[in-house]
Amino acid sequence: MIRIGIFGYGNLARGVENAIAKNADMTLAAVFSRRDPASVKIATPNVPVVLADDVHAWKDKIDVLVICAGSATDLPHMTPDLAKHFHVVDSYDNHSNIPVHFANVDAAASESGHVALISCGWDPGMFSVNRLYAEAALPDGASYTFWGRGVSQGHSDAIRRIPGVVDARQYTVPVAEAVDRVRKGENPTLSVRDKHTRECYVVAAEGADKAEIEKAIVTMPAYFADYNTTVTFVTLEELKANHAALPHGGSVIRSGITGWQNENKQVVEYSLKLDSNPEFTGSVLVAFSRAVYRLATRGDKGSKTVFDIAPADLWGGSREDLLAHML
Amino acid sequence: MIRIGIFGYGNLARGVENAIAKNADMTLAAVFSRRDPASVKIATPNVPVVLADDVHAWKDKIDVLVICAGSATDLPHMTPDLAKHFHVVDSYDNHSNIPVHFANVDAAASESGHVALISCGWDPGMFSVNRLYAEAALPDGASYTFWGRGVSQGHSDAIRRIPGVVDARQYTVPVAEAVDRVRKGENPTLSVRDKHTRECYVVAAEGADKAEIEKAIVTMPAYFADYNTTVTFVTLEELKANHAALPHGGSVIRSGITGWQNENKQVVEYSLKLDSNPEFTGSVLVAFSRAVYRLATRGDKGSKTVFDIAPADLWGGSREDLLAHML
Repeated sequence: MIRIGIFGYGNLARGVENAIAKNADMTLAAVFSRRDPASVKIATPNVPVVLADDVHAWKDKIDVLVICAGSATDLPHMTPDLAKHFHVVDSYDNHSNIPVHFANVDAAASESGHVALISCGWDPGMFSVNRLYAEAALPDGASYTFWGRGVSQGHSDAIRRIPGVVDARQYTVPVAEAVDRVRKGENPTLSVRDKHTRECYVVAAEGADKAEIEKAIVTMPAYFADYNTTVTFVTLEELKANHAALPHGGSVIRSGITGWQNENKQVVEYSLKLDSNPEFTGSVLVAFSRAVYRLATRGDKGSKTVFDIAPADLWGGSREDLLAHML
Repeated sequence: MIRIGIFGYGNLARGVENAIAKNADMTLAAVFSRRDPASVKIATPNVPVVLADDVHAWKDKIDVLVICAGSATDLPHMTPDLAKHFHVVDSYDNHSNIPVHFANVDAAASESGHVALISCGWDPGMFSVNRLYAEAALPDGASYTFWGRGVSQGHSDAIRRIPGVVDARQYTVPVAEAVDRVRKGENPTLSVRDKHTRECYVVAAEGADKAEIEKAIVTMPAYFADYNTTVTFVTLEELKANHAALPHGGSVIRSGITGWQNENKQVVEYSLKLDSNPEFTGSVLVAFSRAVYRLATRGDKGSKTVFDIAPADLWGGSREDLLAHML
C-alpha cells in the first residue's frame, strides 16, 4: 500500500481524499492542517488530522505527500520546504512562474534525495501533456486551449473584493463558434474576446449600487475588461441553490497540417467535462502520486513535471495486464 | 540531426517520409524496399532507395529505423530481425498478440543493445496512452473506444476477396446516438452492433450477381455479420473519384465517477479527425523515433511501448521552452 499524506484541507484536498479511496493500492496516512486539528472533520474514518507544524514527525509513515495549497503565496515556499523531507506532489498553476518554481523545488529535492512533482492536475497537467503529444506529432499546425464552461475561483474571488459584493460566482464560457472553427481545422486567429465569455452571478449587499458594481466588474483589467462579460444579480439563496457546484472542463485542440502540398488537416482534441473540478484534479494528483512513489523507489530525485513521467508509471495494475489489455 | 531510415515503402512509409520533412531535427537517410530500388520513386530528393537485403550495410548511417510493414506476416519476424542491428519503431497492431511480439522483440533488442518501440501509431498508440491516463485518474468508471468515420483497410480487403468484386472501400462509422450517450456519462452497455455501422462501396464485375455479393458481405462472420452493414454498388470511376482518400479518426472516452456518494460524473475524451490516416500514423511514429533516439543515447535497451516513453522525450525543442511554454 502506498501511504499518502495530504497537506492542507480545502476543496482540492477533499478531492484527493476521495481519489485515494478509489485506488486499491493506496491508503490515506494523515491529513495536515494549519487550523486546530480538532476543528477539521475529514471524510475518511480512523485517519488522524495533525497540526501542519508537526509534519516532520511523519517522515517515516508517509510515502508521498500531496500538497493542497494556493499557488499565489503558499506553494512557492511550501513545496521546497516539504521536498526537503518528503516525496511531494503539488498543483502549482501560475504558468508564467513555473520555471522559477521548478528550480526552487529542484534545489531542495535534489539535495535531500526526494522526488517532487510540480504543477500537476489538468491545466497545468493533463492539458499540458496533450498539448505536447499533439505538437510533437504535428509540428506544422496551431494549438488552441478553451476552458469551460466552468467556475473560475480566481475570477469569483476578484468580484468578491468589490465593495458592496456579498458573494459571487464566475463562469468561464468558451465561444461555441470559435471552438467549431478550430475543430474544422480552419486555424483561425482568435483574440482573447473571440475565445471566451464570462458570466458573473453576483449577490449585492442591501442598498449597494448595482450599476456601480457591474461597471467595476466589466471594466476590471486583466480579469474582465478584455472579455464580453455579463453580470446577473441574484439573491444569496439563489447563489447557494443554483451555483454551489464546481463544474469545469475545456478542450485542447491541435489543428495540424500534413502532406507535401499541405493538403491534409489532422485535428487532435483532448476534452474534459467535469462535474467537480477539485475531485478530478485530486484524482490526477493521486494517479501521479503513484508514479512519484515508483520513481522514488527506483532512486530518482529532484523536480519533475507531468512531461517527465512515463504513462506506465501511473498504472496500478500489472505490467502483463497493461500490455495485454491497454495497448 | 537524427538520421531516420524507412524500411518498406507503402502508404504508411510515405506518411513517415512526409513527417520527417516536417521536423527540423531529422533527416531521411535511406528507404529500404524489397522491390527493385530502381522501380521505387520516393518524394524526398537525393535520398537513396536501397534493396532491403542490403540494410545491414547502413548500421552506422541510421539512428532509428522505422519499419513500415504489415502486422499479419511481416512485422512478427521483421522487427526482431532488424532490432538485432538497429534501434527500431514499428506499428504492430494485432492487439491480442502484442505480449508475444513484445517478448520476441525484447529478446533480440536486449541482447544486441538496441531500443525497439513496438505498436506505435494511434490505435495502438495515442489511443492507448489516453486510455491509460484516463483510467489511471478515474479508476471507477467505464472506457469506450469509437473508430471512424474512416476507411478500414482490413474490411476493404475482405470485400475484395469475394468473387465478382473488382474493388471496394469500407467505412467504419460510429453510431452517433451511442457516442452521445457515452459523452453524457450514462455509462451504457453497448453491443458491437450498437457502437458502429459499416458502409461498403463496391465495384462489381460485369455480369456479377450483385445480390449474391451483398449477401456474402453482410453475412461475413467477424467482419460484417455482427454489424448493421450497408452495401452501395458504384462504378470503378466513382470509387476512384469519391473514395480515394484514407480519412479516419475516432474517440477514446472515459466516463468516470467521483465523490463519496458517486455523485459526480467526469468525462474525458480524446478524439482524432484525420484527413489522412497514414500521414497521421507516420507523424506519430516519427515523434516517437525522437524518443527512441534519446533512450538509445542514454544507453537504454529492449522492447518499449508508448507507455514507457515520458512525453518530454518526444519534444524537439529545448527543456527551457518546454517548462516555460508547454506546461
